[in-house]
Amino acid sequence: MPSETINGERLMRHLHELGSIGRAQDGALVRLAGSEEDKLGRDKLVEWLKEADLDVVVDKVGNIFGIWNPDGVGPSHPVLMLGSHIDTVINAGIYDGCYGVLAGLEVIQTMMERGANPAVPIVIAAFSNEEGVLYSPDMMGSLVYAGGISADAALASVGTDGSVLGERLAQIGYAGTEEPGFLKPQAYVELHIEQGPVLERERVTIGAVENLQGISWQRIVIEGDANHAGTTPISMRKDAGLAAARVITFLRDRAKASSSRAVATVGTISFEPNAINVIPSRATFTVDLRDPNEHRLEEEEAALEEFLNQLETDEGVTVKVERLARSEPVKFDENIVKVIERTANARGYSYMRMTSGAGHDAQMIARVAPTAMLFVPSIGGISHNPKEFTQEQDLIAGANVLLDVARSLSGAEH
Amino acid sequence: MPSETINGERLMRHLHELGSIGRAQDGALVRLAGSEEDKLGRDKLVEWLKEADLDVVVDKVGNIFGIWNPDGVGPSHPVLMLGSHIDTVINAGIYDGCYGVLAGLEVIQTMMERGANPAVPIVIAAFSNEEGVLYSPDMMGSLVYAGGISADAALASVGTDGSVLGERLAQIGYAGTEEPGFLKPQAYVELHIEQGPVLERERVTIGAVENLQGISWQRIVIEGDANHAGTTPISMRKDAGLAAARVITFLRDRAKASSSRAVATVGTISFEPNAINVIPSRATFTVDLRDPNEHRLEEEEAALEEFLNQLETDEGVTVKVERLARSEPVKFDENIVKVIERTANARGYSYMRMTSGAGHDAQMIARVAPTAMLFVPSIGGISHNPKEFTQEQDLIAGANVLLDVARSLSGAEH
Repeated sequence: MPSETINGERLMRHLHELGSIGRAQDGALVRLAGSEEDKLGRDKLVEWLKEADLDVVVDKVGNIFGIWNPDGVGPSHPVLMLGSHIDTVINAGIYDGCYGVLAGLEVIQTMMERGANPAVPIVIAAFSNEEGVLYSPDMMGSLVYAGGISADAALASVGTDGSVLGERLAQIGYAGTEEPGFLKPQAYVELHIEQGPVLERERVTIGAVENLQGISWQRIVIEGDANHAGTTPISMRKDAGLAAARVITFLRDRAKASSSRAVATVGTISFEPNAINVIPSRATFTVDLRDPNEHRLEEEEAALEEFLNQLETDEGVTVKVERLARSEPVKFDENIVKVIERTANARGYSYMRMTSGAGHDAQMIARVAPTAMLFVPSIGGISHNPKEFTQEQDLIAGANVLLDVARSLSGAEH
Repeated sequence: MPSETINGERLMRHLHELGSIGRAQDGALVRLAGSEEDKLGRDKLVEWLKEADLDVVVDKVGNIFGIWNPDGVGPSHPVLMLGSHIDTVINAGIYDGCYGVLAGLEVIQTMMERGANPAVPIVIAAFSNEEGVLYSPDMMGSLVYAGGISADAALASVGTDGSVLGERLAQIGYAGTEEPGFLKPQAYVELHIEQGPVLERERVTIGAVENLQGISWQRIVIEGDANHAGTTPISMRKDAGLAAARVITFLRDRAKASSSRAVATVGTISFEPNAINVIPSRATFTVDLRDPNEHRLEEEEAALEEFLNQLETDEGVTVKVERLARSEPVKFDENIVKVIERTANARGYSYMRMTSGAGHDAQMIARVAPTAMLFVPSIGGISHNPKEFTQEQDLIAGANVLLDVARSLSGAEH
């Protein structure tokens, strides 16, 4: 096993330089996909890709590819793809997405410098609009790349500011001509910060991400009767707020009792009329259910439905459920996960298998290519926040594992 | 027992005529204390009191008294007082308060017409600013009358519109000169719609109100950690929303298990950051506890406090409690309650003892005089709403019982 390592100083410099682009006057990092700030970030990435002698190609939805093709093979030849995204949320941290793209660049530069000779081209991908802040859906660039929606449909997306994504991409110079999907990955690997607290808690450096949770989002509206808080006996109430509270504790109790990685969250709520001395006539709240196993996720949804039906009887309320979003869990490629474990082990890094609780471009590319992810610890599990932080040694460790995984998957070891 | 009855036609005409005063352009009934509409309502009441040959006196805080003093006794002589209020909430019904004042007038007119000769003066009281919409506190006129706060303090109250109550009362011509408390009731009786669903459910016509719930209002703020709904395992969460839901179900479970008339209500809630995929870092909600027994109300408060302490340990959250309001329960005069029961029974009306869940002027006057209340059914328990409704036969029944109670308490039967 090679003991070669990536250039940590260069990786950190790239991370901090990209993270300095798109700072608002108050210092907040904001590079929303399609914005002027996104253009500045893209320009910097393209500059670095070109400095590394990579071929830069932009496809119709603005996905950027940096291609290392040492043997000059044709465009139909399989490639190894390493990637993530460089767009951000509002008031973001500097690691989310950018780390995967810049670590991929670092891996290629290291391999070039050490004279590695991969059997397939290695490609860095920076997918458009992963965060989906202005334009829906999120993970858009990788979704289009995997054929989930057409490029035309994506480009027609109207942003929350009224703009059209296709026009904005043209304005900032990133409306390419290549058809999304033009490169055929034989494998896709995405290195990312965990955005959760597990690795830090477990004191483990590398997460070998074997699957990604399915997500079920529902909005629930419970209707009862608004009555006087003083004059209405408990037995005569139709208290929509109490019914909502019972749903919240039910979901927690189930998730806590589950032996799986299931999670359930009620993140939003409102009561009407929302007066201190009036029993709530309406409670509106959202339910976020996640499970890495589709069958179990369906079981959780069914259990909630049954509970809500019983609630109508028990509390004299009516319940309406609106489905907001639903994605099936993704099982990543077992072989790549094993390669990740093996290389982490050979490097002497602690590692564990885990589930991604958040969505990533990898879940889209998994539709068309063997795919897996690596995680490194996020301090405090914090992400989408300026406090997002991963220690330098862990960032370097993750990139080193990515280097070895890339060597292995590209046949560069042979 | 006399079978004389009040003039139902006249009572209903008065109720509907007063209820037609203060209608906004959209038809909503609004006579906020101190407003121009309040003046119009007061003017109409005073007109009726004078037509009935009552002496009309207005005190410093605008309480209006119509005095029937057939024997011409001096001002220090005890009186029987019947009353309530004629100010309204925004978009009110026509019965709340007005019914008690106009039924009192009806009782005196009936007694006059039948040649009754009470041993004490009978006084109709319309207390100022019972609703407290613009000016705090509510039940202000009766509170001042009972010596709970000074007239000057009440008159200095600054409204939510920035106006000063004393100035407004002067503008509308109801800043009187008499000192509040100038009449000494030997008994005070307030007839009111129930504003709750109990009498209708129980198919009972007359509620003999033996006490009035103490009220405890608290605002509770629970602080946890905002983390990603997908990446944070259940065991690592500090979910302020879940903790709030546990408080709501705890309060309901206790109230349901209680053998008393205790009620508990969480009428308002908010989460922060209130995002579908973020665990709530903060939940803010209000708790309204009521019990007719002070000792039990204190027990409920203590049980909540203990639960909140345990919650901090169980859920890893911090809890802050702010007391918003607290009033002790009021026990009404047992003799008057028995008179109400006896007269209802003699009239052949069904009746039951009950607790007032809402606040009323009677709770203030109870500080300085033997006091009780009568309730009649509110359809659907609805109040503070244009749908507020009591059937005519019940309104007449309530006034008839008030007539007999007034005869009894004023010595007019002898």
